[in-house]
Amino acid sequence: MKRFTLALSATVGLFLALPAAAQFQKPEDAIKYRKSAFTVMGSHFGRIGAVVQGKAPFDAKTVADNAQIVATMSMLPFAGFVPGSDKGDTRAKPEVWTEMDKVKAGATKMQEAITALNAAAKTGNLDQIKVAFGEAGKTCKGCHDNYRKD
Amino acid sequence: MKRFTLALSATVGLFLALPAAAQFQKPEDAIKYRKSAFTVMGSHFGRIGAVVQGKAPFDAKTVADNAQIVATMSMLPFAGFVPGSDKGDTRAKPEVWTEMDKVKAGATKMQEAITALNAAAKTGNLDQIKVAFGEAGKTCKGCHDNYRKD
Repeated sequence: MKRFTLALSATVGLFLALPAAAQFQKPEDAIKYRKSAFTVMGSHFGRIGAVVQGKAPFDAKTVADNAQIVATMSMLPFAGFVPGSDKGDTRAKPEVWTEMDKVKAGATKMQEAITALNAAAKTGNLDQIKVAFGEAGKTCKGCHDNYRKD
Repeated sequence: MKRFTLALSATVGLFLALPAAAQFQKPEDAIKYRKSAFTVMGSHFGRIGAVVQGKAPFDAKTVADNAQIVATMSMLPFAGFVPGSDKGDTRAKPEVWTEMDKVKAGATKMQEAITALNAAAKTGNLDQIKVAFGEAGKTCKGCHDNYRKD
């Protein structure tokens, strides 16, 4: 029975591990994917930033559309930090993989802050958007400072 | 009156043109953005392709999630084909800019096919997903053949 349970655990473990790794044929693909997801997220986040900083006119629908895209994108890049993708065309520090629990906690914090930004954007209230944008920005910076090379 | 109308048209024209261009500070930013959006779209489209081709197990929710991401991404990259972004780190042929009407028509066709794929994915019917995936793939290929360097 114990042997069966162990075998089952190993199989289930493998199965659970499979999807993330299987999404990318090579480590380079995972790197390119996560960087691309961050680029698109950053671009749309930046468009909200321009409004928050008064550099672009405030249009509630445009901000809401951008926030929705940021929210979708925020869920994607972390699947790209697969084992073996620490080398190559990446600014990710090796600590990403040795401190993956902290990275995941940071990702969750960011996703929660982006969810709040998305909710604020839907209200169309610029003051609420400004506050939520600032909070979300801090969560980006938190991981960039610790886990991304300059 | 005619002069006023002309001036107004010019102003409105500028205003309408502004948002797309203003999203990117430099042509390189536009190139990086559109390539990133295509990369993320292609990655998630490819994950559905693996299921369609029997190389990955069929899980209805996973396919639906991927199709939803593809649908979101399909709306993004074309804003990156701004004037002046034909030179640089890009495989886009110069014809993209001289035949922008055809490119936009191709983009619309692709977006419609992806919308249909997204609807098929929500049904959870693999046969419908296969058909919709094949149709969507043709619309990708159409523009790649004509407007992307090998």
